[in-house]
Amino acid sequence: MKKNGKISNAVIRRLPRYLRMLEELSVNDVQRVSSKELSEKTGYTASQIRQDLNHFGGFGQQGYGYNVEDLRREIEKILGLTHEYRLVIVGCGRLGRAIANFNYTYNRSFPVVGMFDVNPELIGKTINGVQVAHVDTLPGFLESGEVDIGVICVTKEAAEGVADVLIRGKVRGIWNFAPWDLTEAAGIPVENVHLSDGLQSLVFYINHNEK
Amino acid sequence: MKKNGKISNAVIRRLPRYLRMLEELSVNDVQRVSSKELSEKTGYTASQIRQDLNHFGGFGQQGYGYNVEDLRREIEKILGLTHEYRLVIVGCGRLGRAIANFNYTYNRSFPVVGMFDVNPELIGKTINGVQVAHVDTLPGFLESGEVDIGVICVTKEAAEGVADVLIRGKVRGIWNFAPWDLTEAAGIPVENVHLSDGLQSLVFYINHNEK
Repeated sequence: MKKNGKISNAVIRRLPRYLRMLEELSVNDVQRVSSKELSEKTGYTASQIRQDLNHFGGFGQQGYGYNVEDLRREIEKILGLTHEYRLVIVGCGRLGRAIANFNYTYNRSFPVVGMFDVNPELIGKTINGVQVAHVDTLPGFLESGEVDIGVICVTKEAAEGVADVLIRGKVRGIWNFAPWDLTEAAGIPVENVHLSDGLQSLVFYINHNEK
Repeated sequence: MKKNGKISNAVIRRLPRYLRMLEELSVNDVQRVSSKELSEKTGYTASQIRQDLNHFGGFGQQGYGYNVEDLRREIEKILGLTHEYRLVIVGCGRLGRAIANFNYTYNRSFPVVGMFDVNPELIGKTINGVQVAHVDTLPGFLESGEVDIGVICVTKEAAEGVADVLIRGKVRGIWNFAPWDLTEAAGIPVENVHLSDGLQSLVFYINHNEK
């Protein structure tokens, strides 16, 4: 595997997609796959796929393609998905609970170890085995050092304060769903999810599809 | 504005981000902005921003920058955000309700006009003013022709069947949150949202940030 410095963000963004395709092939007992087949499944061109995967040593063989299991394991290793990452979810409204549920169902290597809110109606409730606690107890909870990623599911107004607590509590990264851009000035990696961005792009394609 | 054919998908993907920045500037009564300032806010380079915005006629002026209101209106026009798009949400579990809520709070130009599920405990409940109906009534509801976008929030297993109903019902586009890739073979634009992709990229950055 080449050093990270040479891998562009665009490639990193495509790896989870390759991984999903490979997991699906693996479940269906497919043992090898060509860049052409991966192209049909992902929508990227075969040459782009070969170029992307060459970054990591090039395990494709002319006339054979890629070994599904080897490639899957290699991408998992590159991304760092070889072990678990523990999440806390701050904000247990519908979105926070949806994320908890999604992770519980489809994403077992990202266990949710804590859930926090300020709403007395939610505090004490158990969601997929985790009891919602008051957000005031979050700093103490983080002191355990057992949290890898903080997930922000609060309102735009509350988001910055929550981010501060998570950063001071030394989480390793933040997954932010609040409609507000957390900058990486924090010194830790941040993934800002803007649901409406995708919806707006969709609208563009709808209008241009119909012209 | 140049013709769509020349605008790459990557540019289209960046427009919603520019729009968010411009809306924020607009709320704060900022009247003009330079590509350098937009660069600091978005993380894209100033030259990339100028290049992106030049696609649409180039309203930037040397030494002045961009007029915030003009640029915001122009991007809205390009994306097609000058009028409303009506959504139906299929699957009213936590995720479907989170999307409904998110749209209701932050995305008022995408009104949810119908919500559908199979769960008897959810049917009849009212969510942000919309009553959840049985999914069997969805084909009839779509016949009204008043639905623009179908939002899929069901399980992986149920997703394909729901997509079929939406496509036969002639929605104009699909926003898919099921962990499964709906292909564009459907003949209409599709936006597949894979929440875990972002989480996996985040893990990569976490591991490489700490090296």
